[in-house]
Amino acid sequence: MKYCSICGASIRYEIPEGDNRKRHICISCGFIHYQNPKIIAGCIPAWEESILLCRRAIEPRLGLWTVPAGFMEQGETLSEAASRETWEEATAEVELDGVHTIITIPHISHVQVLFRAHLKEPKFSPGYESLETKLFNETEIPWNELAFETVHRALHLYFTDKHQGNFKTHIEDYIKPTA
Amino acid sequence: MKYCSICGASIRYEIPEGDNRKRHICISCGFIHYQNPKIIAGCIPAWEESILLCRRAIEPRLGLWTVPAGFMEQGETLSEAASRETWEEATAEVELDGVHTIITIPHISHVQVLFRAHLKEPKFSPGYESLETKLFNETEIPWNELAFETVHRALHLYFTDKHQGNFKTHIEDYIKPTA
Repeated sequence: MKYCSICGASIRYEIPEGDNRKRHICISCGFIHYQNPKIIAGCIPAWEESILLCRRAIEPRLGLWTVPAGFMEQGETLSEAASRETWEEATAEVELDGVHTIITIPHISHVQVLFRAHLKEPKFSPGYESLETKLFNETEIPWNELAFETVHRALHLYFTDKHQGNFKTHIEDYIKPTA
Repeated sequence: MKYCSICGASIRYEIPEGDNRKRHICISCGFIHYQNPKIIAGCIPAWEESILLCRRAIEPRLGLWTVPAGFMEQGETLSEAASRETWEEATAEVELDGVHTIITIPHISHVQVLFRAHLKEPKFSPGYESLETKLFNETEIPWNELAFETVHRALHLYFTDKHQGNFKTHIEDYIKPTA
C-alpha cells in the first residue's frame, strides 16, 4: 500500500499513537488503513453416503479437488456465503446443517468456516471456477489430490464424526510447517 | 475509495468481467480492491460463578458494558485474538474453553466470534479502552446497559447453556430491525 485510497496522498507505515502495531497511515488526511483477516466460507455437501467435490479451474491448485468455498462478501451472513459459493462453484442447492470446522490459517490471515450440508436434489455441474464436480463416497475421496491441507483436515474430521454418529463443531489452527 | 492504493490512479466502481458484483477497480493498473467482512474476536471470561465485563471508554457505546472483544489482526489465530483483546481491554489472562457464539452482523459486515473462557487468576483492571472492569454474577449483569445486542444475545445463550449443564457452539445472524 503506497497511496491513500481516500485522498491519494502517500502512506507511511508506522505505529499510530496509542496503538502497538504498524499500520498504513495517510501523511495528508491521517486516515489509518487497517488490514484484517478474511473469511473463507463453504460447506461439505452430502448426498446419501457421498460428498460433492469440485476440481479447481483456477489457481491456486488448479486441477485439484476441494469443497465449494470462497471469500465471504460484504453484507452477507456466513450461511448465505456458504450457499452462494456452492451455487457458484458446483451449481448445487444445499441446506446447511450446522458449522463443522473453523480453521484459522494465520500465515495467510484466512479463517475457513465450513458447514455440514446436504444437497436438496442430486443436481450439480461445474461453475466457471470448476473443471468438474463429482460425488465421492469415503473410499473414493481423492485424498492425495485435494487442493488444501485445511480441506483434507476438515474431510478427515467429517468422516471421523460420521463414524462416531456425533457431528461436532471443530475449532483449529493450521500452522504451516517450517521447511 | 477514490484512489488506487498501489499506483495512486483513480478508481472506478463497476462489475469486473466474469464477476457479479461491483468492485473498486483501478483505471490505470487494473487492480481490483476487494472488501470483505471483518472478524471481531473475544471471550466470555468466567471466574467462579461470575463473568468479567468491561465498561467502554471509547465510542461506539462509550460508558456501556461489554465482554472483551475486538478486531482480529493479520497473522493471528482466532484464539490469539480473543486472548489478546482480553489482555488489552481488561488486563486479564484467560484460558479459552471452546467457541460459544458466532454471530454474523451483515449490515456492518462483521462476524463476532466469542469463546468461553476462565480467568487464570482473579486479577484484572481496565485497559486503555475501558473505564472499568468488574465481575458480575448472573443476577448482577447490567442487561439494560450492555453495549451491543450481539453481546446481550451471547450472554443470554451462555447462561441458558450453563443452567442446562451443556455448553454448545451457537451460530446465528443478527439482522438489524427495520425502523
